[in-house]
Amino acid sequence: MRVSKLFTKTSKTAPADEVAKNAQLLIRAGYVYKEMAGVYAYLPLGLRVLEKIKAIVREEMNSIDSNEIIMTSLQRKDVWDKTGRWDDELVDIWFKTELKDGTEMGLGWSHEEPIVEMVRQHLTSYKNLPISVYQFQTKLRNELRAKSGIMRGREFVMKDMYSFHETAEDLEQYYQRSIEAYNKVFDRLGVGEDTYVTFASGGAFTKFSHEFQTICDAGEDVIYLHREKNIAVNEEVLEDAIQELKISRDELEPVKTAEVGNIFNFGTQKTDDMGLYAVGPDGLQQSIHLGSYGIGVTRLMGVVAEKMSDDKGLVWPEAIAPYKVYLVSIGEQGAVEAERLYDELTARGIEVLFDDRDERPGTKFADAELMGIPYRLTVSDRLVEQNKLELTKRLDGQTSLLTASEVLAILD
Amino acid sequence: MRVSKLFTKTSKTAPADEVAKNAQLLIRAGYVYKEMAGVYAYLPLGLRVLEKIKAIVREEMNSIDSNEIIMTSLQRKDVWDKTGRWDDELVDIWFKTELKDGTEMGLGWSHEEPIVEMVRQHLTSYKNLPISVYQFQTKLRNELRAKSGIMRGREFVMKDMYSFHETAEDLEQYYQRSIEAYNKVFDRLGVGEDTYVTFASGGAFTKFSHEFQTICDAGEDVIYLHREKNIAVNEEVLEDAIQELKISRDELEPVKTAEVGNIFNFGTQKTDDMGLYAVGPDGLQQSIHLGSYGIGVTRLMGVVAEKMSDDKGLVWPEAIAPYKVYLVSIGEQGAVEAERLYDELTARGIEVLFDDRDERPGTKFADAELMGIPYRLTVSDRLVEQNKLELTKRLDGQTSLLTASEVLAILD
Repeated sequence: MRVSKLFTKTSKTAPADEVAKNAQLLIRAGYVYKEMAGVYAYLPLGLRVLEKIKAIVREEMNSIDSNEIIMTSLQRKDVWDKTGRWDDELVDIWFKTELKDGTEMGLGWSHEEPIVEMVRQHLTSYKNLPISVYQFQTKLRNELRAKSGIMRGREFVMKDMYSFHETAEDLEQYYQRSIEAYNKVFDRLGVGEDTYVTFASGGAFTKFSHEFQTICDAGEDVIYLHREKNIAVNEEVLEDAIQELKISRDELEPVKTAEVGNIFNFGTQKTDDMGLYAVGPDGLQQSIHLGSYGIGVTRLMGVVAEKMSDDKGLVWPEAIAPYKVYLVSIGEQGAVEAERLYDELTARGIEVLFDDRDERPGTKFADAELMGIPYRLTVSDRLVEQNKLELTKRLDGQTSLLTASEVLAILD
Repeated sequence: MRVSKLFTKTSKTAPADEVAKNAQLLIRAGYVYKEMAGVYAYLPLGLRVLEKIKAIVREEMNSIDSNEIIMTSLQRKDVWDKTGRWDDELVDIWFKTELKDGTEMGLGWSHEEPIVEMVRQHLTSYKNLPISVYQFQTKLRNELRAKSGIMRGREFVMKDMYSFHETAEDLEQYYQRSIEAYNKVFDRLGVGEDTYVTFASGGAFTKFSHEFQTICDAGEDVIYLHREKNIAVNEEVLEDAIQELKISRDELEPVKTAEVGNIFNFGTQKTDDMGLYAVGPDGLQQSIHLGSYGIGVTRLMGVVAEKMSDDKGLVWPEAIAPYKVYLVSIGEQGAVEAERLYDELTARGIEVLFDDRDERPGTKFADAELMGIPYRLTVSDRLVEQNKLELTKRLDGQTSLLTASEVLAILD
């Protein structure tokens, strides 16, 4: 991609009402656009990051045999009435609207009930189990406050997965596989070391559910960490967990975190409430065990932006950077050589953002840093004379003078 | 993909309230799920078709230098007030909702105004022009009736593109390029020959806009075709077009069509209304020319389902089929050989849906036909003995006995 063909412009300032660091940086670098508090559009660079995060999550969900689908934003009252969750007293984040004939409509803040209802069409016998489905869905939640940038939105992208099982044991096994898949996702996004499987409040069937909490100063949660035993506990179940896990409160260190995922064992409660059963091997109707597994996709992008950034801007890990290389040309000979390099790198499948604008080198360098592209490759008249290229790593600023083939060996 | 791992089941019947052929077939084959009238979820096979259509549209939009973004569903009243289109009298398909503090919110039925507003942040000078952006957006429209399956939804996916230009000439040039890009899209989807660039009602700046109308019995429009001159005219501008294009009414043949795309030259009206200007070469503020270009992505999928289907089910063109090959194994030796073939075809990048279920051959064949997968590849005990495979084309039912290498030559 040529910067001259990218319509977004970087900016030295963010909107005055934007208090979150992630959104400030993402807006300044041209990744997102603030429609209103908690509601952000994704511009070309931001959409690329979002799609790369989704691709990683998709791979890991597919690897545990989940089927990708996409549910709807408009939702029916009768489906939610089955569990009582249509009630605004019980769920205080509904956005609702209505059809022309006055029929009330919900706007999807969650898809648990609609997915259970949908699965009914394809599930009659225990032989159909297990079933696992997931989607990347734009959720709408009527949050009272939304000041955390893309880390807590009124409109945001979530990956939600649901699994249906014949037995509690089968669900438990899948639950463990999903924990492993989640850990792989966070590892690949570069936040694995700072992300903890955290004990949180459970339901009727299990004492605890599990959250994935990433250490982050801008996070809204506090978890209690036992670093030695690799145990993490959410405040809300602190007393229970201390008893259960036989740890002492003194060993626990409170840290600020953001919840990037959560998984929940519903047992047979929700499927029973919804009247979803299967015919068992004995020909009798039996209950179905349900698990639910979420990842906050746009929130994760915000967390990475918060954690991996410095005073110059964003610092994307390679796996989700919108482009791998920011190519800067300086001078006339530099421009000719840069065109050649752009073609060669692109032909090799290396993703290059080519700053072909007629701007001062300082402006180009500052944009490369603000945008957080992992490598900056500079070619100037002087460098062309020396038959060298300048490669700078965004992460540590380390610069090397290299031959073209040395550069390729690193980037390819 | 193994059919045993696909959670959807085919069905001999569609929901009783579903009157549209496209939805009946898509529901029976497990491609979509009806949430309510005009609101459909996309199940694994349906989502694959949808994503393939999007990929084709994306390639063609990228090829005319448009930048992909994603706007938001929640929309601000003040942005729409600028053109008066917040008014429910003027736009009678709004879904609206509100924030906790009572602030009214719109739900995106179109994104013209929000995109013009967004572009303002990145556009100050004529040097920033032209700009073209597009998105694949889920639109919500409060339609009074919704009986055409996925061809007219209350919730549906649209590709909408917007281009901003310094001069009328530059817009006109881009408008023509977009017509070419659109034609390529429809060609690649297999409906090119039946899709006509159609004169439709224009605005303040042009006498006509252009629709892309595809001949389709289930369509809601009627156009007037001059097959010899390759001219198509929407009913609404029939008199004007006859005069302008010097054709006679007698030469025109009315045909039922579905509008799969439309493009519109706004001139400077909307940008003027929204107060979006650029500083010109002379340092003075000047108006900006705007074009708008839509493709109904889910509608297109419905049109293809309507047009390319028979009494046995769907008949996808290869370009957008969820899988290219439906692999059927019969018998024990057949199963062993099918496993080997599945691995080999998949390794070669051929998309295979492998029916590894313990079902009768007739059931598997019927599912292959209902799902409309372009090739069915059968391997049975008897065929293994003969060292042959049976390849059947869904389009014409033609069956050939071939060696494995002959099959590969066709599918690869």
